[in-house]
Amino acid sequence: MAHAASGLPFDDIRGLIADLPPADRDAAAQAWARDAELTKPAGSLGRLEEIAAFLAAWQGKSMPSADRPSICVFAANHGVAKHGVSAYPQSVTKQMLDNFGAGGAAINQICATYDIGFKVFDLALDIPTGDITVEAAMDDKACVATMAFGMEALAGNVDLLGLGEMGIANTTPAAAIYAALYGGDPRRFVGRGTGVDEEGHQRKCAAVEKALVTHQGHLRDPLEVLRRLGGREIAAIAGAILAARLQHVPVVLDGYVATAAAAILHAIKPDSIDHCLAGHLSAEGAHAEVLERLGKKPLLQLDMRLGEGSGAALAIGLIKSAVACHRGMATFSKAGVSQRSA
Amino acid sequence: MAHAASGLPFDDIRGLIADLPPADRDAAAQAWARDAELTKPAGSLGRLEEIAAFLAAWQGKSMPSADRPSICVFAANHGVAKHGVSAYPQSVTKQMLDNFGAGGAAINQICATYDIGFKVFDLALDIPTGDITVEAAMDDKACVATMAFGMEALAGNVDLLGLGEMGIANTTPAAAIYAALYGGDPRRFVGRGTGVDEEGHQRKCAAVEKALVTHQGHLRDPLEVLRRLGGREIAAIAGAILAARLQHVPVVLDGYVATAAAAILHAIKPDSIDHCLAGHLSAEGAHAEVLERLGKKPLLQLDMRLGEGSGAALAIGLIKSAVACHRGMATFSKAGVSQRSA
Repeated sequence: MAHAASGLPFDDIRGLIADLPPADRDAAAQAWARDAELTKPAGSLGRLEEIAAFLAAWQGKSMPSADRPSICVFAANHGVAKHGVSAYPQSVTKQMLDNFGAGGAAINQICATYDIGFKVFDLALDIPTGDITVEAAMDDKACVATMAFGMEALAGNVDLLGLGEMGIANTTPAAAIYAALYGGDPRRFVGRGTGVDEEGHQRKCAAVEKALVTHQGHLRDPLEVLRRLGGREIAAIAGAILAARLQHVPVVLDGYVATAAAAILHAIKPDSIDHCLAGHLSAEGAHAEVLERLGKKPLLQLDMRLGEGSGAALAIGLIKSAVACHRGMATFSKAGVSQRSA
Repeated sequence: MAHAASGLPFDDIRGLIADLPPADRDAAAQAWARDAELTKPAGSLGRLEEIAAFLAAWQGKSMPSADRPSICVFAANHGVAKHGVSAYPQSVTKQMLDNFGAGGAAINQICATYDIGFKVFDLALDIPTGDITVEAAMDDKACVATMAFGMEALAGNVDLLGLGEMGIANTTPAAAIYAALYGGDPRRFVGRGTGVDEEGHQRKCAAVEKALVTHQGHLRDPLEVLRRLGGREIAAIAGAILAARLQHVPVVLDGYVATAAAAILHAIKPDSIDHCLAGHLSAEGAHAEVLERLGKKPLLQLDMRLGEGSGAALAIGLIKSAVACHRGMATFSKAGVSQRSA
C-alpha cells in the first residue's frame, strides 16, 4: 500500500473506511416482522419488500422513510478528453450544468416527477484533471480534498441519496479504474459513452491501455487507482458514499461512472458499500460484470446510458413505492383479511 | 371457429377485433424527431425514449401525456377454488376489496405515490364462475356481457390505463388458458400463486389438467378458451383492452392473470394488443414464456407476484418520467448545448 504510514494524505480516509457503522439488524428484523403482517401474500412484493428492509437496516429505523430523497450530481472535466474519446466537446460539461440550472435536462424532469431534491456540484470545471495517459489525474491532496468535498452531498437532512455525475469523457477514467481493479482485457470496460464512433472507440481503448502502462506498478492500492486514473466526480462520489454511511443514509448509485467510485471503496473493504443499491444496469461498457463483482443486483434495466443521476432518480421513484407500501399498508388483523389457510 | 356464423354472441367482439385502429405513425415519427433534439446523446434514455414514442403512436399525438393515468382492478370469484388451489380462502377476494376501499392495500400506496387514479370493479363476487374442471366458467352471453362491462374502465377521460385483477384462485384459470393456447406440458404454467404449498400445487396442476380434458375439442377458438377456462376478471380485462384501443388509450398490463386476457386477444389477432405494454415480469408461473410469445418486453422485473395492478402501477410511475423527459427537456438549440462533434 503506497500510503500506509501515518500522516499521509489518505490516512483519514483509510481510518473512516476501517471503522464504518454496521447495519441495524434489529431495525431490519422489525421491518420484516411488520412485512409479514401486511395484507399481501408473504414475498409477493418481491424486491419492494427487500428494499424496505434494506432501508430500515441502513437508516436504523424499523419504519424507513423516503421523505427527503436527493440526487447529487458531481461535475468535472478531464484531461484525457483531448484524445478525442467522446462524441461531444468538453464545453458541453459546463453547458449541461447551465441546462441543469435552467431545468432543461432529463434529471430535472425525473426529479420533478418524484419530488426528489436535486443538487449539482461544480468540481472546478475550468481546470480539467491531469491527462491519465501521461500523468496522474490528481495529486494526493486534491484527491482527498475532493472526497471531503463530496461529503457535502449529505448537507440538508436527506434520508435517501442518489449519486450521479456529469463530465464529458468520464467513461474513459471509469473504464481505466475497472481495468486496473479487475484486470484482464481492458477493452471490455470501454463502451461507446455518449455515442462515440468506431474511430473514437479505438482512441478510447488506446487511452485506457496507455494509462494502464503509464501507471503500471502503482495500481495495487485502490486509492492510488482513484487518484491516478479517476476524476474529481468519481472521488467526490466516493466521499459522498462514505459520508452517507456515517450519517445512516442509504445510497442509490447511478450508472457506469458513479459505480466506479463504489468499486474503489469495495476494493478497499467490500462491506464499505453495503448501504448502496445499484439503481440501474447501464447500457455502457461492462456494467453488468462490475455490478456482479460488487454483489449488486440493479433495480432497473432500461438500456439507459445518460448519467446525470437519471437511473438513480428513477430507482428512487420506485423506492418511494416500496416505502409507501411498507408504511401505509394495513395489517391482516386491522383490515379483517383472513390469513392463509394452508 | 365455434361461433363464426352471424348473430351469435361473440360476433360483436369479433367485429371489433377485426377492425381496430392502427398506430399513428406520423405522431410516432414526430416524437422521435423531437427526441433527437433533446439535450442528451441519442438513445441514452433507452426504453424511456421508446415509451414516449409508443405513447405518441397510440395516443395519436406527438406530445404524449400521462396526466390522467388510471389503474382498474377487476375482481371475481372462481368455482375452481373449491379444489384447494389457493393458499387463501375465497372470502379473501371480498375482504381485499374492502381493503382497497379503505386504502390499505399495496395498490393504494403505489397509486398514491404516483398520483394514479384507481377504480375497482366487483364482478359478482357472490356468484363464483363455473368450476372449470367440470363445466365452462361462463356461458356465451355472460362472457360477452362481462367483456362489455370491462369497457367501462375507459370512463373518465383517462390517457393511460393500467389493468389488474383480484380473485382468489385466479392463477388457475390463467394457467389453463395459457396451456390451452400454447400446448405442451401444462404444468409449466402452474405457479405457486399466493404461495400454495406442495400439495396445493399438485391440486392446482391436477385442476388445470382436468379442465383441459373436460373442454377438449372446444379450445381452438380463443374466445371459447376464455369463456370455458377463464374468469370474469379475465374477460373484463380483455374488453378493457379493446375499448382502450378504440379510444386511443395505451394500456399497461399487470402480471400473470391480466396477461392471460391479452393472450386471448393476441391468439385471435396478434396486432390487437400492439397498444399494450407489459408492466412487469411476474414471478408467477411461466410469465416470461408468455410475454415472449406475445412479443412484450416487461418494463420492470422485481420478483413481484401480487396482482391487484401493482406491477402496472409501478410501470406507470416509470412511464410518467418518460413522458416528463419527452415533454419537458430542453432542445440543444434552446439550451445552447453543443451537438456531437463526431
